[in-house]
Amino acid sequence: MNLNAPIAVIDSGLGGLTVAKAIHQVLPHERILYFGDTARLPYGSKSPKTVANFVKQIICWLRQYRCKHVVLACNTATALALPAVRNEFPALSISGVIEPGAKAAIVAAGSRDIPCIGVIATEATIRSRAYERAIGRRRHHAKILLKSTPLLVPMIEEGRGCDDPLVSLALRQYLHPLVERRLDVLVLGCTHYPLLKPAVLRILPAQVPVIDSAQMCAQDVERRLMRSHLLSPMHRSNEHWLTPVVTDDAERFQTLASRFLGEPVPAPHTLSVDQLYIATAAVAAERYVKSA
Amino acid sequence: MNLNAPIAVIDSGLGGLTVAKAIHQVLPHERILYFGDTARLPYGSKSPKTVANFVKQIICWLRQYRCKHVVLACNTATALALPAVRNEFPALSISGVIEPGAKAAIVAAGSRDIPCIGVIATEATIRSRAYERAIGRRRHHAKILLKSTPLLVPMIEEGRGCDDPLVSLALRQYLHPLVERRLDVLVLGCTHYPLLKPAVLRILPAQVPVIDSAQMCAQDVERRLMRSHLLSPMHRSNEHWLTPVVTDDAERFQTLASRFLGEPVPAPHTLSVDQLYIATAAVAAERYVKSA
Repeated sequence: MNLNAPIAVIDSGLGGLTVAKAIHQVLPHERILYFGDTARLPYGSKSPKTVANFVKQIICWLRQYRCKHVVLACNTATALALPAVRNEFPALSISGVIEPGAKAAIVAAGSRDIPCIGVIATEATIRSRAYERAIGRRRHHAKILLKSTPLLVPMIEEGRGCDDPLVSLALRQYLHPLVERRLDVLVLGCTHYPLLKPAVLRILPAQVPVIDSAQMCAQDVERRLMRSHLLSPMHRSNEHWLTPVVTDDAERFQTLASRFLGEPVPAPHTLSVDQLYIATAAVAAERYVKSA
Repeated sequence: MNLNAPIAVIDSGLGGLTVAKAIHQVLPHERILYFGDTARLPYGSKSPKTVANFVKQIICWLRQYRCKHVVLACNTATALALPAVRNEFPALSISGVIEPGAKAAIVAAGSRDIPCIGVIATEATIRSRAYERAIGRRRHHAKILLKSTPLLVPMIEEGRGCDDPLVSLALRQYLHPLVERRLDVLVLGCTHYPLLKPAVLRILPAQVPVIDSAQMCAQDVERRLMRSHLLSPMHRSNEHWLTPVVTDDAERFQTLASRFLGEPVPAPHTLSVDQLYIATAAVAAERYVKSA
Protein backbone atom coordinates (compact mmCIF):
# COMPACT_ATOMS: atom_id res chain seq x y z
CA MET A 1 0.00 0.00 0.00
CA ASN A 2 1.28 3.43 -1.00
CA LEU A 3 1.53 5.71 2.06
CA ASN A 4 0.79 8.70 -0.16
CA ALA A 5 -2.44 7.22 -1.50
CA PRO A 6 -5.45 9.39 -0.67
CA ILE A 7 -8.12 8.79 1.95
CA ALA A 8 -11.54 8.60 0.27
CA VAL A 9 -14.38 10.44 2.00
CA ILE A 10 -17.82 9.53 0.66
CA ASP A 11 -21.00 11.50 1.24
CA SER A 12 -24.34 12.10 -0.46
CA GLY A 13 -23.42 15.75 -0.87
CA LEU A 14 -21.92 18.40 1.34
CA GLY A 15 -22.24 17.19 4.92
CA GLY A 16 -19.20 14.95 4.75
CA LEU A 17 -17.05 18.05 4.32
CA THR A 18 -17.25 18.57 8.08
CA VAL A 19 -15.63 15.12 8.35
CA ALA A 20 -13.04 15.90 5.65
CA LYS A 21 -12.16 19.11 7.50
CA ALA A 22 -11.85 17.30 10.83
CA ILE A 23 -9.59 14.65 9.22
CA HIS A 24 -7.46 17.40 7.68
CA GLN A 25 -7.06 19.06 11.08
CA VAL A 26 -5.93 15.80 12.69
CA LEU A 27 -3.91 14.55 9.70
CA PRO A 28 -2.72 17.60 7.73
CA HIS A 29 -0.30 15.54 5.60
CA GLU A 30 -2.99 13.37 4.08
CA ARG A 31 -4.63 13.91 0.71
CA ILE A 32 -8.41 13.55 0.74
CA LEU A 33 -10.46 12.46 -2.26
CA TYR A 34 -13.96 13.71 -1.51
CA PHE A 35 -16.90 12.09 -3.30
CA GLY A 36 -20.26 13.94 -3.13
CA ASP A 37 -23.12 12.07 -4.81
CA THR A 38 -24.97 15.30 -5.55
CA ALA A 39 -27.06 13.82 -8.39
CA ARG A 40 -28.80 11.45 -5.98
CA LEU A 41 -28.70 13.36 -2.68
CA PRO A 42 -30.11 13.30 -0.05
CA TYR A 43 -29.69 9.75 1.24
CA GLY A 44 -31.55 10.57 4.46
CA SER A 45 -35.04 9.86 3.13
CA LYS A 46 -34.18 6.73 1.14
CA SER A 47 -34.31 2.96 1.72
CA PRO A 48 -31.42 0.77 2.98
CA LYS A 49 -31.28 -1.17 -0.29
CA THR A 50 -31.05 1.94 -2.46
CA VAL A 51 -28.43 3.67 -0.29
CA ALA A 52 -26.30 0.50 -0.03
CA ASN A 53 -26.43 0.17 -3.82
CA PHE A 54 -25.38 3.80 -4.34
CA VAL A 55 -22.43 3.45 -1.95
CA LYS A 56 -21.34 0.17 -3.52
CA GLN A 57 -21.25 1.84 -6.96
CA ILE A 58 -19.15 4.71 -5.62
CA ILE A 59 -16.64 2.31 -4.07
CA CYS A 60 -16.38 0.40 -7.38
CA TRP A 61 -15.58 3.68 -9.16
CA LEU A 62 -13.04 4.67 -6.48
CA ARG A 63 -11.01 1.48 -6.91
CA GLN A 64 -8.85 3.09 -9.61
CA TYR A 65 -7.45 5.50 -6.96
CA ARG A 66 -6.21 2.70 -4.66
CA CYS A 67 -7.21 4.71 -1.60
CA LYS A 68 -5.59 3.64 1.65
CA HIS A 69 -8.82 4.06 3.58
CA VAL A 70 -12.47 4.79 2.79
CA VAL A 71 -14.67 6.80 5.17
CA LEU A 72 -18.44 6.79 4.85
CA ALA A 73 -18.73 10.37 6.05
CA CYS A 74 -22.50 10.35 6.19
CA ASN A 75 -24.51 8.94 9.04
CA THR A 76 -27.21 7.60 6.71
CA ALA A 77 -24.67 5.85 4.47
CA THR A 78 -22.95 4.42 7.56
CA ALA A 79 -26.23 3.23 9.05
CA LEU A 80 -27.60 1.67 5.87
CA ALA A 81 -24.54 0.61 3.89
CA LEU A 82 -21.44 0.02 6.05
CA PRO A 83 -22.02 -3.67 6.86
CA ALA A 84 -22.98 -4.39 3.23
CA VAL A 85 -19.93 -2.73 1.68
CA ARG A 86 -17.51 -4.20 4.25
CA ASN A 87 -18.90 -7.57 3.28
CA GLU A 88 -18.66 -6.82 -0.45
CA PHE A 89 -15.10 -5.41 -0.30
CA PRO A 90 -13.36 -7.42 2.45
CA ALA A 91 -9.84 -6.33 1.41
CA LEU A 92 -10.67 -2.64 1.71
CA SER A 93 -10.32 -0.66 4.93
CA ILE A 94 -13.68 1.11 5.44
CA SER A 95 -15.02 3.02 8.42
CA GLY A 96 -18.04 5.14 9.26
CA VAL A 97 -19.22 7.88 11.57
CA ILE A 98 -21.63 6.08 13.88
CA GLU A 99 -19.34 3.85 16.00
CA PRO A 100 -16.99 6.73 16.90
CA GLY A 101 -19.97 8.97 17.78
CA ALA A 102 -21.61 6.26 19.88
CA LYS A 103 -18.35 5.60 21.78
CA ALA A 104 -17.88 9.31 22.50
CA ALA A 105 -21.48 9.60 23.74
CA ILE A 106 -20.89 6.79 26.23
CA VAL A 107 -17.69 8.40 27.49
CA ALA A 108 -19.51 11.72 27.86
CA ALA A 109 -22.36 10.06 29.73
CA GLY A 110 -19.84 9.16 32.47
CA SER A 111 -20.76 6.98 35.39
CA ARG A 112 -24.51 7.62 35.55
CA ASP A 113 -26.54 4.44 36.23
CA ILE A 114 -28.88 4.85 33.29
CA PRO A 115 -27.65 7.72 31.14
CA CYS A 116 -30.13 9.34 28.79
CA ILE A 117 -28.53 9.77 25.36
CA GLY A 118 -30.31 11.72 22.64
CA VAL A 119 -29.57 11.38 18.94
CA ILE A 120 -30.80 13.76 16.25
CA ALA A 121 -30.39 12.60 12.64
CA THR A 122 -32.11 12.09 9.29
CA GLU A 123 -35.24 10.00 8.97
CA ALA A 124 -33.34 7.02 7.48
CA THR A 125 -30.61 7.04 10.17
CA ILE A 126 -33.23 7.14 12.92
CA ARG A 127 -35.35 4.39 11.33
CA SER A 128 -32.25 2.16 11.01
CA ARG A 129 -31.76 2.25 14.82
CA ALA A 130 -28.01 2.06 14.12
CA TYR A 131 -27.13 4.44 16.99
CA GLU A 132 -29.34 2.47 19.37
CA ARG A 133 -27.45 -0.71 18.47
CA ALA A 134 -24.00 0.93 18.59
CA ILE A 135 -24.66 2.45 22.03
CA GLY A 136 -26.53 -0.62 23.32
CA ARG A 137 -23.59 -2.92 22.52
CA ARG A 138 -21.43 -0.93 24.96
CA ARG A 139 -23.93 0.22 27.60
CA HIS A 140 -26.86 -2.09 28.16
CA HIS A 141 -28.68 0.24 30.50
CA ALA A 142 -28.71 3.47 28.55
CA LYS A 143 -31.99 5.23 27.71
CA ILE A 144 -31.76 6.29 24.07
CA LEU A 145 -33.98 9.01 22.63
CA LEU A 146 -34.04 9.11 18.84
CA LYS A 147 -35.41 12.13 16.99
CA SER A 148 -35.45 12.62 13.22
CA THR A 149 -34.86 16.23 12.25
CA PRO A 150 -35.32 16.29 8.48
CA LEU A 151 -35.50 20.08 8.05
CA LEU A 152 -32.02 20.86 9.36
CA VAL A 153 -30.15 19.72 6.23
CA PRO A 154 -32.29 21.76 3.79
CA MET A 155 -32.03 24.77 6.14
CA ILE A 156 -28.22 24.57 6.16
CA GLU A 157 -28.09 24.02 2.39
CA GLU A 158 -30.29 27.10 1.91
CA GLY A 159 -27.55 29.05 3.69
CA ARG A 160 -29.35 29.61 6.99
CA GLY A 161 -27.15 29.89 10.04
CA CYS A 162 -27.47 29.78 13.81
CA ASP A 163 -29.06 33.23 14.08
CA ASP A 164 -31.91 32.56 11.66
CA PRO A 165 -35.26 32.62 13.50
CA LEU A 166 -36.51 29.67 11.45
CA VAL A 167 -33.50 27.58 12.52
CA SER A 168 -34.04 28.51 16.18
CA LEU A 169 -37.74 27.65 16.02
CA ALA A 170 -37.08 24.29 14.29
CA LEU A 171 -34.37 23.39 16.83
CA ARG A 172 -36.63 24.32 19.74
CA GLN A 173 -39.43 22.16 18.30
CA TYR A 174 -37.09 19.22 17.73
CA LEU A 175 -35.05 19.43 20.96
CA HIS A 176 -37.74 20.43 23.44
CA PRO A 177 -39.14 16.87 23.88
CA LEU A 178 -35.59 15.57 24.49
CA VAL A 179 -34.75 18.29 27.02
CA GLU A 180 -38.02 17.60 28.84
CA ARG A 181 -36.98 13.98 29.27
CA ARG A 182 -33.75 15.08 31.02
CA LEU A 183 -31.17 14.45 28.40
CA ASP A 184 -27.58 13.76 29.59
CA VAL A 185 -25.80 13.82 26.21
CA LEU A 186 -26.83 14.82 22.69
CA VAL A 187 -25.28 13.24 19.56
CA LEU A 188 -25.36 15.27 16.34
CA GLY A 189 -26.05 12.23 14.15
CA CYS A 190 -25.69 13.95 10.78
CA THR A 191 -22.52 15.46 9.37
CA HIS A 192 -24.33 18.70 8.46
CA TYR A 193 -25.31 19.45 12.02
CA PRO A 194 -21.97 20.69 13.42
CA LEU A 195 -22.72 23.90 11.50
CA LEU A 196 -25.68 24.48 13.84
CA LYS A 197 -23.84 23.50 17.04
CA PRO A 198 -23.84 27.04 18.54
CA ALA A 199 -27.64 27.23 18.12
CA VAL A 200 -28.05 23.75 19.62
CA LEU A 201 -25.93 24.75 22.65
CA ARG A 202 -28.18 27.78 23.28
CA ILE A 203 -31.22 25.52 23.59
CA LEU A 204 -29.77 22.70 25.70
CA PRO A 205 -29.09 23.02 29.45
CA ALA A 206 -25.47 24.11 30.00
CA GLN A 207 -24.29 20.77 31.41
CA VAL A 208 -25.38 18.67 28.40
CA PRO A 209 -22.38 17.77 26.19
CA VAL A 210 -22.92 17.76 22.43
CA ILE A 211 -21.11 15.06 20.44
CA ASP A 212 -19.99 15.98 16.96
CA SER A 213 -19.54 12.73 15.03
CA ALA A 214 -17.22 14.40 12.48
CA GLN A 215 -14.50 15.02 15.08
CA MET A 216 -14.86 11.56 16.59
CA CYS A 217 -14.68 9.98 13.12
CA ALA A 218 -11.46 11.88 12.32
CA GLN A 219 -9.78 10.61 15.49
CA ASP A 220 -10.92 7.10 14.60
CA VAL A 221 -9.37 7.40 11.12
CA GLU A 222 -6.10 8.59 12.67
CA ARG A 223 -6.04 5.57 15.01
CA ARG A 224 -6.75 3.17 12.13
CA LEU A 225 -3.97 4.59 9.92
CA MET A 226 -1.48 4.60 12.81
CA ARG A 227 -2.32 1.01 13.68
CA SER A 228 -1.74 -0.13 10.10
CA HIS A 229 1.36 2.08 9.66
CA LEU A 230 -0.27 3.98 6.82
CA LEU A 231 0.21 7.58 7.92
CA SER A 232 1.59 9.75 5.14
CA PRO A 233 5.12 10.99 5.89
CA MET A 234 5.15 13.91 3.48
CA HIS A 235 3.81 17.39 3.52
CA ARG A 236 2.53 18.01 -0.01
CA SER A 237 2.70 21.76 -0.29
CA ASN A 238 2.00 22.12 -4.03
CA GLU A 239 -1.26 20.33 -4.04
CA HIS A 240 -4.50 21.20 -2.30
CA TRP A 241 -5.29 18.65 0.40
CA LEU A 242 -8.82 18.20 -0.96
CA THR A 243 -9.81 16.78 -4.39
CA PRO A 244 -13.59 16.97 -4.75
CA VAL A 245 -15.55 14.80 -7.19
CA VAL A 246 -19.33 15.22 -7.58
CA THR A 247 -22.06 13.59 -9.67
CA ASP A 248 -23.93 16.84 -10.37
CA ASP A 249 -23.66 20.62 -10.40
CA ALA A 250 -20.02 21.29 -9.54
CA GLU A 251 -20.64 25.04 -9.35
CA ARG A 252 -23.34 24.84 -6.68
CA PHE A 253 -21.17 22.37 -4.75
CA GLN A 254 -18.15 24.64 -4.87
CA THR A 255 -20.12 27.63 -3.55
CA LEU A 256 -21.73 25.71 -0.69
CA ALA A 257 -18.54 23.73 0.06
CA SER A 258 -16.55 26.89 0.65
CA ARG A 259 -19.14 27.88 3.25
CA PHE A 260 -18.89 24.45 4.90
CA LEU A 261 -15.09 24.53 5.07
CA GLY A 262 -14.73 28.25 5.74
CA GLU A 263 -12.08 28.43 2.99
CA PRO A 264 -12.04 28.29 -0.83
CA VAL A 265 -12.47 24.80 -2.30
CA PRO A 266 -10.89 23.59 -5.58
CA ALA A 267 -13.29 23.24 -8.54
CA PRO A 268 -14.75 19.73 -8.38
CA HIS A 269 -14.46 17.17 -11.12
CA THR A 270 -17.96 16.18 -12.33
CA LEU A 271 -18.71 12.56 -13.01
CA SER A 272 -21.94 11.31 -14.59
CA VAL A 273 -23.88 8.68 -12.65
CA ASP A 274 -23.63 6.48 -15.77
CA GLN A 275 -19.90 6.14 -15.09
CA LEU A 276 -20.68 4.66 -11.68
CA TYR A 277 -22.79 2.00 -13.39
CA ILE A 278 -19.97 1.29 -15.84
CA ALA A 279 -17.41 0.98 -13.01
CA THR A 280 -19.72 -1.39 -11.14
CA ALA A 281 -20.18 -3.56 -14.22
CA ALA A 282 -16.39 -3.62 -14.72
CA VAL A 283 -15.84 -4.85 -11.15
CA ALA A 284 -18.49 -7.55 -11.63
CA ALA A 285 -16.87 -8.64 -14.91
CA GLU A 286 -13.42 -8.79 -13.32
CA ARG A 287 -14.74 -10.94 -10.46
CA TYR A 288 -16.47 -13.22 -12.94
CA VAL A 289 -13.26 -13.70 -14.93
CA LYS A 290 -11.29 -14.43 -11.74
CA SER A 291 -13.84 -16.99 -10.56
CA ALA A 292 -14.06 -18.71 -13.95
CA MET B 1 -53.83 4.65 -30.22
CA ASN B 2 -55.90 2.76 -27.62
CA LEU B 3 -58.40 5.11 -25.96
CA ASN B 4 -58.13 3.07 -22.78
CA ALA B 5 -54.36 3.44 -22.57
CA PRO B 6 -53.28 5.20 -19.38
CA ILE B 7 -52.06 8.77 -18.98
CA ALA B 8 -48.53 8.76 -17.50
CA VAL B 9 -47.85 11.28 -14.76
CA ILE B 10 -44.14 11.67 -13.94
CA ASP B 11 -42.73 13.30 -10.83
CA SER B 12 -39.61 13.13 -8.70
CA GLY B 13 -41.70 11.91 -5.79
CA LEU B 14 -44.99 12.91 -4.26
CA GLY B 15 -45.79 16.41 -5.51
CA GLY B 16 -47.17 15.22 -8.84
CA LEU B 17 -50.01 13.53 -6.96
CA THR B 18 -51.72 16.92 -6.71
CA VAL B 19 -51.65 16.91 -10.54
CA ALA B 20 -52.83 13.29 -10.74
CA LYS B 21 -55.72 14.15 -8.43
CA ALA B 22 -56.66 17.23 -10.45
CA ILE B 23 -56.60 15.15 -13.68
CA HIS B 24 -58.78 12.52 -12.02
CA GLN B 25 -61.29 15.18 -10.99
CA VAL B 26 -61.51 16.56 -14.54
CA LEU B 27 -61.26 13.17 -16.30
CA PRO B 28 -62.62 10.52 -13.93
CA HIS B 29 -62.72 7.82 -16.66
CA GLU B 30 -59.00 7.89 -17.30
CA ARG B 31 -56.46 5.52 -15.81
CA ILE B 32 -53.34 7.20 -14.47
CA LEU B 33 -49.94 5.53 -14.31
CA TYR B 34 -48.03 7.55 -11.71
CA PHE B 35 -44.24 7.40 -11.73
CA GLY B 36 -42.45 8.75 -8.63
CA ASP B 37 -38.64 8.71 -8.90
CA THR B 38 -38.25 8.42 -5.14
CA ALA B 39 -34.70 6.96 -5.32
CA ARG B 40 -33.37 10.17 -6.87
CA LEU B 41 -35.71 12.85 -5.49
CA PRO B 42 -35.72 15.80 -5.13
CA TYR B 43 -35.11 17.22 -8.60
CA GLY B 44 -35.39 20.81 -7.34
CA SER B 45 -31.74 21.19 -6.32
CA LYS B 46 -30.21 19.43 -9.35
CA SER B 47 -28.76 20.48 -12.72
CA PRO B 48 -30.67 20.66 -16.03
CA LYS B 49 -28.52 17.92 -17.58
CA THR B 50 -29.08 15.48 -14.71
CA VAL B 51 -32.83 16.09 -14.47
CA ALA B 52 -33.29 15.81 -18.27
CA ASN B 53 -31.37 12.52 -18.20
CA PHE B 54 -33.52 11.13 -15.36
CA VAL B 55 -36.76 12.07 -17.16
CA LYS B 56 -35.54 10.60 -20.44
CA GLN B 57 -34.79 7.28 -18.71
CA ILE B 58 -38.28 7.21 -17.16
CA ILE B 59 -39.92 7.83 -20.55
CA CYS B 60 -37.85 5.00 -22.08
CA TRP B 61 -39.10 2.66 -19.37
CA LEU B 62 -42.72 3.85 -19.79
CA ARG B 63 -42.77 2.98 -23.51
CA GLN B 64 -43.98 -0.56 -22.79
CA TYR B 65 -47.29 0.91 -21.47
CA ARG B 66 -48.07 2.79 -24.70
CA CYS B 67 -49.48 5.71 -22.72
CA LYS B 68 -51.71 8.07 -24.66
CA HIS B 69 -50.18 11.12 -23.03
CA VAL B 70 -47.27 11.89 -20.70
CA VAL B 71 -47.44 14.69 -18.15
CA LEU B 72 -44.31 16.03 -16.47
CA ALA B 73 -46.16 16.78 -13.25
CA CYS B 74 -43.22 18.51 -11.63
CA ASN B 75 -42.27 22.12 -12.24
CA THR B 76 -38.54 21.36 -12.07
CA ALA B 77 -38.83 18.47 -14.57
CA THR B 78 -40.93 20.69 -16.86
CA ALA B 79 -38.48 23.58 -16.61
CA LEU B 80 -35.33 21.51 -17.13
CA ALA B 81 -36.44 18.55 -19.27
CA LEU B 82 -39.59 19.24 -21.32
CA PRO B 83 -37.92 20.69 -24.45
CA ALA B 84 -35.25 17.95 -24.37
CA VAL B 85 -37.69 15.04 -24.09
CA ARG B 86 -40.10 16.49 -26.67
CA ASN B 87 -37.13 16.64 -29.00
CA GLU B 88 -36.02 13.12 -28.13
CA PHE B 89 -39.49 11.53 -28.44
CA PRO B 90 -41.23 13.50 -31.22
CA ALA B 91 -44.00 10.93 -31.72
CA LEU B 92 -45.06 11.09 -28.07
CA SER B 93 -47.60 13.57 -26.71
CA ILE B 94 -45.91 15.24 -23.69
CA SER B 95 -46.99 18.25 -21.65
CA GLY B 96 -45.86 20.03 -18.50
CA VAL B 97 -47.13 22.25 -15.72
CA ILE B 98 -45.47 25.58 -16.49
CA GLU B 99 -47.24 26.78 -19.64
CA PRO B 100 -50.74 26.21 -18.17
CA GLY B 101 -49.73 27.99 -14.94
CA ALA B 102 -48.20 30.92 -16.82
CA LYS B 103 -51.32 31.32 -18.98
CA ALA B 104 -53.59 31.29 -15.94
CA ALA B 105 -51.42 33.90 -14.21
CA ILE B 106 -51.78 36.24 -17.17
CA VAL B 107 -55.56 35.79 -17.25
CA ALA B 108 -55.69 36.47 -13.49
CA ALA B 109 -53.53 39.58 -13.90
CA GLY B 110 -56.36 41.08 -16.01
CA SER B 111 -55.99 44.37 -17.84
CA ARG B 112 -53.35 46.01 -15.65
CA ASP B 113 -50.70 47.90 -17.64
CA ILE B 114 -47.73 46.23 -16.01
CA PRO B 115 -48.97 43.41 -13.80
CA CYS B 116 -46.68 42.16 -11.07
CA ILE B 117 -46.62 38.35 -11.11
CA GLY B 118 -44.84 36.44 -8.35
CA VAL B 119 -43.66 32.84 -8.67
CA ILE B 120 -42.51 30.65 -5.78
CA ALA B 121 -40.78 27.39 -6.71
CA THR B 122 -37.72 25.17 -6.13
CA GLU B 123 -34.21 26.49 -6.61
CA ALA B 124 -33.79 24.73 -10.00
CA THR B 125 -37.13 25.97 -11.39
CA ILE B 126 -36.32 29.54 -10.38
CA ARG B 127 -32.77 29.37 -11.78
CA SER B 128 -34.13 28.05 -15.10
CA ARG B 129 -36.22 31.23 -15.56
CA ALA B 130 -38.82 29.02 -17.30
CA TYR B 131 -41.77 30.92 -15.79
CA GLU B 132 -40.24 34.24 -16.78
CA ARG B 133 -39.98 33.05 -20.38
CA ALA B 134 -43.46 31.47 -20.44
CA ILE B 135 -45.09 34.64 -19.08
CA GLY B 136 -42.88 36.99 -21.10
CA ARG B 137 -43.86 35.33 -24.38
CA ARG B 138 -47.48 36.33 -23.76
CA ARG B 139 -47.17 39.61 -21.83
CA HIS B 140 -44.11 41.66 -22.69
CA HIS B 141 -44.70 44.23 -20.00
CA ALA B 142 -45.18 42.10 -16.93
CA LYS B 143 -42.98 42.50 -13.86
CA ILE B 144 -42.01 39.02 -12.70
CA LEU B 145 -40.77 38.32 -9.18
CA LEU B 146 -39.10 34.95 -8.74
CA LYS B 147 -38.49 33.47 -5.29
CA SER B 148 -37.01 30.07 -4.53
CA THR B 149 -38.60 28.48 -1.47
CA PRO B 150 -36.61 25.29 -0.91
CA LEU B 151 -37.89 24.51 2.60
CA LEU B 152 -41.55 24.10 1.68
CA VAL B 153 -41.19 20.64 0.09
CA PRO B 154 -39.30 19.10 3.04
CA MET B 155 -41.79 20.72 5.45
CA ILE B 156 -44.74 19.14 3.60
CA GLU B 157 -42.97 15.78 3.36
CA GLU B 158 -42.33 15.88 7.10
CA GLY B 159 -46.11 16.07 7.52
CA ARG B 160 -46.35 19.72 8.52
CA GLY B 161 -49.56 21.49 7.57
CA CYS B 162 -50.92 25.01 7.30
CA ASP B 163 -51.25 25.49 11.06
CA ASP B 164 -47.65 24.62 11.90
CA PRO B 165 -45.81 27.68 13.29
CA LEU B 166 -42.67 26.77 11.34
CA VAL B 167 -44.63 26.70 8.07
CA SER B 168 -46.21 30.09 8.85
CA LEU B 169 -42.84 31.64 9.70
CA ALA B 170 -41.19 30.25 6.55
CA LEU B 171 -44.05 31.46 4.35
CA ARG B 172 -43.94 34.92 5.94
CA GLN B 173 -40.16 35.10 5.34
CA TYR B 174 -40.51 33.97 1.72
CA LEU B 175 -43.63 35.97 0.77
CA HIS B 176 -43.03 39.21 2.63
CA PRO B 177 -40.59 40.64 0.03
CA LEU B 178 -43.11 39.84 -2.76
CA VAL B 179 -46.04 41.41 -0.88
CA GLU B 180 -43.97 44.53 -0.24
CA ARG B 181 -43.43 44.94 -3.97
CA ARG B 182 -47.22 44.98 -4.54
CA LEU B 183 -47.85 41.61 -6.02
CA ASP B 184 -50.93 41.23 -8.30
CA VAL B 185 -50.87 37.43 -8.74
CA LEU B 186 -48.94 34.59 -7.10
CA VAL B 187 -48.13 31.33 -8.93
CA LEU B 188 -47.50 28.23 -6.83
CA GLY B 189 -44.71 26.92 -9.05
CA CYS B 190 -44.26 23.53 -7.40
CA THR B 191 -46.79 20.73 -7.31
CA HIS B 192 -46.34 20.27 -3.54
CA TYR B 193 -47.44 23.80 -2.73
CA PRO B 194 -51.23 23.46 -3.21
CA LEU B 195 -51.16 21.66 0.15
CA LEU B 196 -50.08 24.95 1.77
CA LYS B 197 -52.53 27.16 -0.16
CA PRO B 198 -54.69 28.05 2.88
CA ALA B 199 -51.59 29.27 4.74
CA VAL B 200 -50.42 31.24 1.68
CA LEU B 201 -53.85 32.92 1.39
CA ARG B 202 -53.65 34.04 5.05
CA ILE B 203 -50.42 35.93 4.32
CA LEU B 204 -51.29 37.55 0.98
CA PRO B 205 -53.60 40.58 0.67
CA ALA B 206 -57.18 39.37 0.01
CA GLN B 207 -57.31 40.56 -3.61
CA VAL B 208 -54.23 38.60 -4.77
CA PRO B 209 -55.24 35.46 -6.68
CA VAL B 210 -53.16 32.31 -6.16
CA ILE B 211 -52.58 30.10 -9.21
CA ASP B 212 -52.34 26.38 -8.59
CA SER B 213 -50.46 24.87 -11.53
CA ALA B 214 -51.89 21.37 -10.82
CA GLN B 215 -55.45 22.46 -11.68
CA MET B 216 -54.33 24.40 -14.75
CA CYS B 217 -52.29 21.44 -15.94
CA ALA B 218 -55.29 19.09 -15.59
CA GLN B 219 -57.47 21.37 -17.74
CA ASP B 220 -54.67 21.50 -20.30
CA VAL B 221 -54.49 17.67 -20.41
CA GLU B 222 -58.27 17.52 -20.92
CA ARG B 223 -58.05 19.98 -23.85
CA ARG B 224 -55.21 18.00 -25.45
CA LEU B 225 -57.03 14.65 -25.21
CA MET B 226 -60.28 16.18 -26.53
CA ARG B 227 -58.45 17.75 -29.46
CA SER B 228 -56.84 14.45 -30.42
CA HIS B 229 -60.05 12.43 -29.78
CA LEU B 230 -58.33 10.37 -27.13
CA LEU B 231 -60.72 10.67 -24.20
CA SER B 232 -61.54 7.33 -22.62
CA PRO B 233 -65.19 6.33 -23.14
CA MET B 234 -65.39 3.81 -20.32
CA HIS B 235 -65.84 3.99 -16.63
CA ARG B 236 -63.57 1.33 -15.20
CA SER B 237 -65.20 0.51 -11.91
CA ASN B 238 -63.17 -2.59 -10.97
CA GLU B 239 -59.81 -0.99 -11.15
CA HIS B 240 -58.38 1.85 -9.09
CA TRP B 241 -57.83 4.92 -11.25
CA LEU B 242 -54.25 5.27 -9.99
CA THR B 243 -51.36 2.81 -10.55
CA PRO B 244 -48.30 4.07 -8.69
CA VAL B 245 -44.75 3.01 -9.57
CA VAL B 246 -41.77 4.21 -7.51
CA THR B 247 -38.01 3.70 -7.61
CA ASP B 248 -37.61 3.46 -3.82
CA ASP B 249 -39.42 2.84 -0.54
CA ALA B 250 -42.97 1.98 -1.61
CA GLU B 251 -44.17 1.94 1.99
CA ARG B 252 -43.12 5.51 2.77
CA PHE B 253 -44.62 6.62 -0.53
CA GLN B 254 -47.93 4.94 0.18
CA THR B 255 -48.25 6.58 3.60
CA LEU B 256 -47.39 10.08 2.37
CA ALA B 257 -49.39 9.64 -0.87
CA SER B 258 -52.57 8.91 1.03
CA ARG B 259 -52.09 12.22 2.85
CA PHE B 260 -51.55 14.03 -0.47
CA LEU B 261 -54.67 12.56 -2.07
CA GLY B 262 -56.83 12.53 1.03
CA GLU B 263 -57.79 8.90 0.26
CA PRO B 264 -56.08 5.48 0.44
CA VAL B 265 -53.61 4.80 -2.37
CA PRO B 266 -52.90 1.33 -3.87
CA ALA B 267 -49.56 -0.25 -2.90
CA PRO B 268 -46.97 0.97 -5.41
CA HIS B 269 -44.89 -1.27 -7.61
CA THR B 270 -41.18 -0.74 -6.86
CA LEU B 271 -38.74 -0.57 -9.71
CA SER B 272 -34.96 -0.46 -9.29
CA VAL B 273 -33.16 2.44 -10.95
CA ASP B 274 -31.04 -0.18 -12.76
CA GLN B 275 -34.14 -1.13 -14.77
CA LEU B 276 -34.39 2.45 -16.04
CA TYR B 277 -30.82 2.16 -17.35
CA ILE B 278 -31.68 -1.16 -19.03
CA ALA B 279 -34.82 0.32 -20.65
CA THR B 280 -32.79 3.29 -21.91
CA ALA B 281 -30.15 1.01 -23.40
CA ALA B 282 -32.90 -1.05 -25.07
CA VAL B 283 -34.37 2.07 -26.71
CA ALA B 284 -30.90 3.10 -27.91
CA ALA B 285 -30.27 -0.38 -29.34
CA GLU B 286 -33.64 -0.40 -31.13
CA ARG B 287 -32.94 2.98 -32.70
CA TYR B 288 -29.52 1.80 -33.78
CA VAL B 289 -30.99 -1.29 -35.46
CA LYS B 290 -33.64 0.81 -37.22
CA SER B 291 -31.05 3.27 -38.48
CA ALA B 292 -28.66 0.54 -39.68
